Parts: sequence; C-alpha cells; structure tokens
Amino acid sequence: MLNLIKALFFDVFGTLVDWRTGIAREAEAKLAPLGYGLNWEAFADAWRDEYQPSMEEVRTGRLPFSKLDALHRRNLERILPRFGLPKLDEQVLHDLTLAWHCLDAWDDVGPGLVRLRRRFWIAPVSNGNISLMVDLARRNHINWDAILGAELARDYKPKPHVYLAAATAFDLKPEECMMVAAHSSDLAAAADCGLRTAHVARPRERGTGGGEAAPSVPTDLAVGSLDDLADRLHA
Amino acid sequence: MLNLIKALFFDVFGTLVDWRTGIAREAEAKLAPLGYGLNWEAFADAWRDEYQPSMEEVRTGRLPFSKLDALHRRNLERILPRFGLPKLDEQVLHDLTLAWHCLDAWDDVGPGLVRLRRRFWIAPVSNGNISLMVDLARRNHINWDAILGAELARDYKPKPHVYLAAATAFDLKPEECMMVAAHSSDLAAAADCGLRTAHVARPRERGTGGGEAAPSVPTDLAVGSLDDLADRLHA
Repeated sequence: MLNLIKALFFDVFGTLVDWRTGIAREAEAKLAPLGYGLNWEAFADAWRDEYQPSMEEVRTGRLPFSKLDALHRRNLERILPRFGLPKLDEQVLHDLTLAWHCLDAWDDVGPGLVRLRRRFWIAPVSNGNISLMVDLARRNHINWDAILGAELARDYKPKPHVYLAAATAFDLKPEECMMVAAHSSDLAAAADCGLRTAHVARPRERGTGGGEAAPSVPTDLAVGSLDDLADRLHA
Repeated sequence: MLNLIKALFFDVFGTLVDWRTGIAREAEAKLAPLGYGLNWEAFADAWRDEYQPSMEEVRTGRLPFSKLDALHRRNLERILPRFGLPKLDEQVLHDLTLAWHCLDAWDDVGPGLVRLRRRFWIAPVSNGNISLMVDLARRNHINWDAILGAELARDYKPKPHVYLAAATAFDLKPEECMMVAAHSSDLAAAADCGLRTAHVARPRERGTGGGEAAPSVPTDLAVGSLDDLADRLHA
C-alpha cells in the first residue's frame, strides 16, 4: 500500500519549522530596541492562537480568500493591546508580520527532505502563502518540486479541497499522496480525502511537552523525524 | 530600473527546452516500433501548431480551463489522420501525450539558471501545467522557487491575469518582475502588464532559422543565452 505513494505533502508550521522560537526571537529583535519588554514566547503563542479562528472566517466564507500574511497582520494587531503595546508604526507592523518568513527548520528536516526527494515528489501543502513558503525554503535550503497548498486552492486546510487540489496538481490519485504533519487534525482531514498519512512527533512545538508526541488518530505511519520517515519509506 | 528586479519569470517551451527535437524523438520512439514511419519533425511542428488555437478556446471562454496535458492530448488526436495514422490505443495516446514531459533544455539553461537563482527568485510562467513543469525540471536538474503560470492563474498566456497572478504570488509589483522568453508576443503581453522583459534568441527553435533571432517588439534586454542574461543582470 505504501509502495503506491508517489508524492509527499508537508505541513510546514510546527512540522518542518519551529515557529515558536522563531517568532519569539524575531519579535524581541524588532520590539526590544523600541523599549518594549514582554514574555516573547507567550507573545508567539498568543499570535499563533489567532491562527485557526482567522482562517475559519475564510473557510466559512465570511471573508474572501486572503493570504496568510494578511491574516497574520490582522491577528498581530488584535493581540498587541493584550501585551500592553500601543498601535505600532506601519513599518514595524509590516516587518513584524514578516517574522513568519524567518523561521528555522527543525534539525532533521534538511537531510530528511534530501533523502525523501530522491524517491518522491515533495511539496508543502501548508496554509502559508507562496511567497512565505519561498522565503522559508530559501532560508532553510529546501528544494521543493512545487509549492502547493492554500494559495493554489484558495481555501484553507482542513477543507478537503486543499488536499485534493494538491493531488490534482501532481496528476495523482489521493492514495498516491501522503500528508506528513505533526498535527492529528491535519492528518485526519487528509485521510478523509483518501490520502495516506504520516505523523511526525514534534513534542517541543509549543515548548517542552507542548506538541504532539504521538498521533491521536489512526495514521499509516508515526515517526520521530524525517530521517525515520525516509527509513520507513525506503528512501 | 533593472536593479529593481527581484524575480525572473520564464517561458518554457522553446525558451528553455527544445520541444521540436524532443517531440520528434519521443514520437519516433513510441510509434516506429508499431510500424509507423513518418517525418517526425513535421509531426512535432504540426502538433505544436495546434497549441495556440486550442488555448484560444480557453482564453475566450468557449472551453473551461483544462490543463495543457489535456489540450495536448486533444491536439494529438486531431493531427493523427493528417499523417495517415489510425486511431491509436488509449495507452499509446496517453504515453505519446507525455512526450511533452520529456524535453531537454538548451545547453545554456542549467548553468544560467544556477547563476540567476543566486540573485533572483525564479519561476516558470508557462502555459504548461504544474506536473509537466515538475517533470521538465527534474529531467533537466532545475530548481525553481515555485511553479507559477497557467495552472495557478487558471487561464493561458498572453492573457494579462497569468503574468499578474505570478507577480502577486511573489508579493511583487509587475515592474519588479522580468519575463524571459524567446517569443516577442509573450514579451509584448508581459510588458503591457508592466513587467520588465528579456528576449532570449532561440533561432533553432523550429529547426535552423525557425525561431526568433531577435525580438520584433521593444524589450528591456535581448540576449543570446541565459549566461548572457546573468551577465547583463550582474548575477
């Protein structure tokens, strides 16, 4: 069954890149010089907490499709008052929003993707927009075959169309594609569309113990790193 | 002016890959063993001649958006009788359509793109579909930042939306993008959208003398190879 797989689709935030450390670092780098001091990791968590609710407005049709950059910007303005921050300069808000373009991959990602790409077509199927994916790929020396996901589908995961549009772009049946993610909800939605699924444990996604050490739904594979995944898929 | 450029968009058929030699070779490889003998280059030319008319049906809205693979397949069936070929097996038709996925890049393309990618974001903005672009990239060892073009825009060049959707995907203004092509009509349309343009001479695109040795419209640059382009753009 797994030997039918021709393409691997990757979730990105949390699965491939460590958003919490990166956002905390970038926020401090941009706001501390302006005299602001706050709990930078709590700030990252608060910003991330607005992620699903903002996409839900697009999923339900209350908001037309907007790139994740635009949602990140809106969510940033929403959380600033909670941290006692005033309305910031337009340029600061813009630069801070681009913090999501400056995140580092977990250590296993680079070598793992090189191995996996020898055997499979690989693409991000993320809710992040195309330019955001390009910046993260360049920063982390990742070569994708294509950038699929929300901007191509013009909707957000876990809506089925996002997974199915990715398979269609590669001319593959859903069962020839495997979704790789650190989040059970993403994998459950992909499996409902007929994709194969692999869970990657990222137990430190939201600080120690703040990530999924194991899937809470049935998956085809559950691994601890992309190197493990490459082993399991004989890549 | 040229120092504002952040991304290069590439036409693919003719500009980066030699479709005529490749289609003639693949057609012969698939049809000669079945006992068919014909002028393979004339066959390639005839197939290519159906390209613009078939896309025009999508551009004008007479046909809903279909991937170029589907148009290639339809065009193949249209030209077969002209070469005295009968209705072929489904599998043969399918394999032959995929000949367009097996084309070789002109010699300067590999080294030129490596140089250009150090300084610019690079993407195909082709009428070819995503899977077709992936196959050509893998075959020719090209690493794109993203695959933009017709399938993302769901329309065909030279419709303005295709060029503008590519710029939007990269969060760039049209004038920050340069279209690189061997065809004046493509460059004229891109320039109308505000993009910068570079013409690459491919005088052998359709056999000796059967390609544009120089642009017939004003362009920002006119070069003989992607290495020349890299020189002119200081990449």
